[in-house]
Amino acid sequence: MSAANDAADRLLYDYWRSSAAFRVRIALRLKGLDYEPHAVHLLRDGGQQHADAYRVINPQGLIPALKIDGALLTQSLAIIEYLDEAYPQPPLLPGNAMQRAAIRSLSLQIACDIHPLNNLRVLNRLKAQFGAAETQRTAWMQHWMQLGFAALEPRLSAMSDGRRHCVGDQITMADVVLVPQVFNARRFDLPMDAYPTICRLSDAAMQLDAFQRAAPQQQPDAE
Amino acid sequence: MSAANDAADRLLYDYWRSSAAFRVRIALRLKGLDYEPHAVHLLRDGGQQHADAYRVINPQGLIPALKIDGALLTQSLAIIEYLDEAYPQPPLLPGNAMQRAAIRSLSLQIACDIHPLNNLRVLNRLKAQFGAAETQRTAWMQHWMQLGFAALEPRLSAMSDGRRHCVGDQITMADVVLVPQVFNARRFDLPMDAYPTICRLSDAAMQLDAFQRAAPQQQPDAE
Repeated sequence: MSAANDAADRLLYDYWRSSAAFRVRIALRLKGLDYEPHAVHLLRDGGQQHADAYRVINPQGLIPALKIDGALLTQSLAIIEYLDEAYPQPPLLPGNAMQRAAIRSLSLQIACDIHPLNNLRVLNRLKAQFGAAETQRTAWMQHWMQLGFAALEPRLSAMSDGRRHCVGDQITMADVVLVPQVFNARRFDLPMDAYPTICRLSDAAMQLDAFQRAAPQQQPDAE
Repeated sequence: MSAANDAADRLLYDYWRSSAAFRVRIALRLKGLDYEPHAVHLLRDGGQQHADAYRVINPQGLIPALKIDGALLTQSLAIIEYLDEAYPQPPLLPGNAMQRAAIRSLSLQIACDIHPLNNLRVLNRLKAQFGAAETQRTAWMQHWMQLGFAALEPRLSAMSDGRRHCVGDQITMADVVLVPQVFNARRFDLPMDAYPTICRLSDAAMQLDAFQRAAPQQQPDAE
């Protein structure tokens, strides 16, 4: 068994519906890296991510965390960048510095400006501080997804330029981050008619084996 | 005049109090890159970032954006990574892949999990959707900063290990992202007694010329 395929060396603290974890699962599969999933249930027991057993692993109490190459990595984009540096093929940040900047900017447009506002802990805080009912919490999520997708759609339309993936014919980190956000949008019934490019690119990526294997419903802890 | 110092080639769409813009100003100064600031007032005229004149530049309507080397870059961390690749000295992501992952993870812990929740547009949404008064909006901000800093403090204490900066004796992207967040915390009167390492590291970085020149009150649009 080659080092690059020794699953026992890699442990992913995971939750099937976490879109940050979904990103890392896709990246691991694209790199052909097997891993052992360790489910941390974000709802059960008041949230297993808050339990001491997990706080020892990631004091931030967030999913995902990846044990790899003798260290524990946190923050999904930092993990993906690490995988891309340590396991360069296939590259998820191809091209020159300017092209890499565009890929990172697209990724951060989702990872900073959409996803963190819709996290479970944010919805819980809206409920606790403002008494937000479920419909209000869903409206909050949809607001940020709409705003984010409306800015993303023309940008992706220009960058993909009719080609198969976000910035051309090859998968990059931008596709890895886009797909879980689209999954989340559909889960919360966001009308997607205004975002044909986003849908096209997400659907194209989802045809690949790495994306399918990483999908929430394919995980051992899926409900 | 050398290419690396030709301010007219670089245009930063900026706002003195934006902490994402503050990050980019620090990075430009650390790299010794002059630039022309173009102030986009986030409050005046209902927010100049929403005006058509700026939407043409950055359809996301967010600050900062940097015109450099013939292109327009958005998302502060993508801009910093670009500067580090195109202008390698001094390196803001030094070390091997694992060390770079740690620097990125620290940066993202702030850039994804603290800052986006406290953005002006989020506070405006809390007011619009939940009628949140100013004291409630401040409580919201303080909640996320407290939670973020509480997770960051032990991590930075371990990583800096008594040395001058976040991950050792040299400034990295982690310091570049930390300082504006601490500035923001102090601006909103967050009690900082529980975060001695965060304060120490932020104060140490602020002694450097690049950080001082990038500080909000030093900008031409400061009020």
